[in-house]
Amino acid sequence: MAQIALLDNLIEQLERLPSIGHKTASRLAFHLLRAPDGQAEALADAIVNARSGIHECDVCCNLAEGTLCPICSANNRDRHTICVVEQPQDVSAFERTREYHGLYHVLHGVISPMDGVGPDQIRIRPLLTRIANEDITEVIMATNPTVEGEATAMYISKLLAPFHIRVTRLAYGIPVGGDLEYADEITLRRSLEGRGEL
Amino acid sequence: MAQIALLDNLIEQLERLPSIGHKTASRLAFHLLRAPDGQAEALADAIVNARSGIHECDVCCNLAEGTLCPICSANNRDRHTICVVEQPQDVSAFERTREYHGLYHVLHGVISPMDGVGPDQIRIRPLLTRIANEDITEVIMATNPTVEGEATAMYISKLLAPFHIRVTRLAYGIPVGGDLEYADEITLRRSLEGRGEL
Repeated sequence: MAQIALLDNLIEQLERLPSIGHKTASRLAFHLLRAPDGQAEALADAIVNARSGIHECDVCCNLAEGTLCPICSANNRDRHTICVVEQPQDVSAFERTREYHGLYHVLHGVISPMDGVGPDQIRIRPLLTRIANEDITEVIMATNPTVEGEATAMYISKLLAPFHIRVTRLAYGIPVGGDLEYADEITLRRSLEGRGEL
Repeated sequence: MAQIALLDNLIEQLERLPSIGHKTASRLAFHLLRAPDGQAEALADAIVNARSGIHECDVCCNLAEGTLCPICSANNRDRHTICVVEQPQDVSAFERTREYHGLYHVLHGVISPMDGVGPDQIRIRPLLTRIANEDITEVIMATNPTVEGEATAMYISKLLAPFHIRVTRLAYGIPVGGDLEYADEITLRRSLEGRGEL
């Protein structure tokens, strides 16, 4: 809309969100203007409160409201296993499986020289400190199966070699419910290599 | 993510936006948490400022920052024609055509008994006041071509009858670039009825 600066500004800020284009941003802006009293303000408050109230867990770098995240402060977790993931949302993904009961370590990224991200820009150092000080028997590398994820997993596993603990990697293979016809050859080759007894 | 109340709240607030489901809301929330300093806060400010700083134009009920909207306060518009639309975003749509130079009137809805919206819930009364007091020669009914939009246009045109001014309706027909094969029969019938000389 021409010349309504506050509206243009709102649309512009909404457009900066991922996967929100100009049309969607306009639609959301008009929705927010029309929304019942308090709804838009509740969203604004939620953003500000989340930004100011959520920080990284002192131990595992997961998201936390206090000094420790819900998982590090729980007393029913296996404290000898650490699952190393890229992002906090990967923790949620593992928690949804209800299969893993150990601890996590969130790297907040992967080593990616192309994007100027080196080992010191992600949370590798706190991981080494934990392994030196805690009684850890296994580290599961659960970075994404991408070039950067692989490289980061390899890099960390080399740093962990002196500690003589078990370092494992998630299994590769065909996704459950997937279709062999559409599986790429690398995935298929890996699933052959990793085949198990029936 | 289990037990991080501030994050859950942010996701919940984002989910209330139209066309934003749980997955998208989570992705946006994690993006906002990771965003560079100031970006998320700028969005929150934009929401609050837009809500508090934008209200309805005293004349045409379009969105405005001051008492008058940019169109009512412009001095290069044809002040004898009013285009009646449902929503402020319809004004933007007409302005993009660069074809219409008259004024607007924004109803902020349509008459829809099913949704409990009667003539008094939309801005029909201010429209009548304008027509009684301003020197208007034509009113273009540009409500949407839906059952409610049609009914609202008919209702208003009846109210305008005593003023003896020209009341017109947008032309119906096949959309430019459309495909006859996929045009519904009502649209096609209307485009036949409204056919013009070549």
